[in-house]
Amino acid sequence: MNMHALNTANQDVYPTRLPQEQWMERRDPTVWGKWTPEAPLTEAQTKAFEQNGYLILNDVFSDEEVSALQQESASMRAGGADLAPENLITEPGSDEVRTIFRLDEQNALFDRLARDSRIAGRVRYLLDDEVYLHQSRLNYKPGFTGKEFYWHSDFETWHAEDGMPRMRAISASVLLTDNDALNGPLMLMPGSHQTFVACAGETPDNNHQTSLKKQEIGVPSHDSLSRMADKFGIDYAAGRAGTVILFDCNTLHGSNGNITPFPRSNAFFVYNAWSNRVVSPFAAKAPRPAFLSSRDAEHPIAIESGNMA
Amino acid sequence: MNMHALNTANQDVYPTRLPQEQWMERRDPTVWGKWTPEAPLTEAQTKAFEQNGYLILNDVFSDEEVSALQQESASMRAGGADLAPENLITEPGSDEVRTIFRLDEQNALFDRLARDSRIAGRVRYLLDDEVYLHQSRLNYKPGFTGKEFYWHSDFETWHAEDGMPRMRAISASVLLTDNDALNGPLMLMPGSHQTFVACAGETPDNNHQTSLKKQEIGVPSHDSLSRMADKFGIDYAAGRAGTVILFDCNTLHGSNGNITPFPRSNAFFVYNAWSNRVVSPFAAKAPRPAFLSSRDAEHPIAIESGNMA
Repeated sequence: MNMHALNTANQDVYPTRLPQEQWMERRDPTVWGKWTPEAPLTEAQTKAFEQNGYLILNDVFSDEEVSALQQESASMRAGGADLAPENLITEPGSDEVRTIFRLDEQNALFDRLARDSRIAGRVRYLLDDEVYLHQSRLNYKPGFTGKEFYWHSDFETWHAEDGMPRMRAISASVLLTDNDALNGPLMLMPGSHQTFVACAGETPDNNHQTSLKKQEIGVPSHDSLSRMADKFGIDYAAGRAGTVILFDCNTLHGSNGNITPFPRSNAFFVYNAWSNRVVSPFAAKAPRPAFLSSRDAEHPIAIESGNMA
Repeated sequence: MNMHALNTANQDVYPTRLPQEQWMERRDPTVWGKWTPEAPLTEAQTKAFEQNGYLILNDVFSDEEVSALQQESASMRAGGADLAPENLITEPGSDEVRTIFRLDEQNALFDRLARDSRIAGRVRYLLDDEVYLHQSRLNYKPGFTGKEFYWHSDFETWHAEDGMPRMRAISASVLLTDNDALNGPLMLMPGSHQTFVACAGETPDNNHQTSLKKQEIGVPSHDSLSRMADKFGIDYAAGRAGTVILFDCNTLHGSNGNITPFPRSNAFFVYNAWSNRVVSPFAAKAPRPAFLSSRDAEHPIAIESGNMA
């Protein structure tokens, strides 16, 4: 338990949605845990995560596990009409399901995946705290017409609109399809997590209703993004289905559209440190709905080990 | 001079815009010339072009030549208002210039580039004929908001709407910016040039007025593209500014959008064999305008050698 974070939970150390954009230095560690030979990541992996703000772990899940996840995914998407509409986002310009939220609550296997030690155990080590799911979802980006997702820091939104106090959260993307440079992979700016870009502009009411399709408030300016890209470059996360990408809550990321016939799908889990639970939003009138920002976790998740399929 | 092509110029050996899409085998060679040790491409390069339908030639132009071309390009775009509107295409949703047509007629240096032996001399060898410019343009795909260009075979359109009789044309893209996998590079399906996909649907009047922004008629179906991509895979053309990509008129290609800050720009020349000059359109009421389809060339271009800058 980190007393500092607890004591200052309501203090806004990352002010944003300001009259003018500004850069400030990150005030939190990226890796909170201390590496030992027993740690679930190697020392080199730990250092790479700290330096780049992300880590790609190839072939974490076996072919059998991936196949079971793909089947559950297909069955949920086929039965999309049974899911509550507030948990679904459709592709702009079509009815195709793009995102299913509250994934851990909708499907036992994906709940088990979220609690798997190969993901959650590693995140717990990096954050040096018990964790809970701030958000969980299944993303599906179809072939031919998959739209882009513009550059952003997740933390900026989670802080401003959800009330996440500090940078002590990590996202995990579990690839359910093979991903290469051309079918809209996750792009990241290595090292960008060390700078907080406080964004310009007040948060409109119900910003999330449009920002999930096309984000306009809470994103860095073209000028900032150009400077960041020149300074840090742009990497992308490729790998076979079963690959896991861990990335810090403040790493700038986005993805291009996808005209290839090859769809892209992943399960996406946001782990927040138990000591970093959300408070009132720092720059919005009301918090976003629970499917975007879990506010009622009663205890940390129970991490499980062993094969899933 | 190829008598076969001349004699059958008005015969439609590639019927398209049909009630139903269908695949047919290409009826023309890809490489018309015969390789000798004096040829302007190596035997391996010639074979690669024949097999894949494209060839990437890195560092064809020197840094000084590239820099001179970039300066001319910037000055033309800055003076865009002086160019005739029919020669300009703007980015959907903005006023930024995306394409300047009739490039060889608008700028002396780009005219010289079009006639450079390092491009036109190689194309003349591959086509085994004198060549003229069917189309020439400067493409500019901005950073952040560069839109995708959907999969298509150029020849399908040039045959249907411009009256190009046979597959005896090659496009050259000269990169004026560095291009990598992430900033919307040209994607190609290697080997796809051997199959002609006759497209479904009648050509609307003035199809080019919308198809240059978003093509809907004259593109293969999702099903065809999926089968092609499974069969051939997808490659992309990357390289530093000064790289030249030669590709056959029937190679399926397209490009993704680009949210990176890095723009993409190239000069684009379509060389048609002199013996393959356009006739009446094969599947449209009237030919497209001259900026898309040159119809009045009086003689082949005069190829020049030597440094340009």
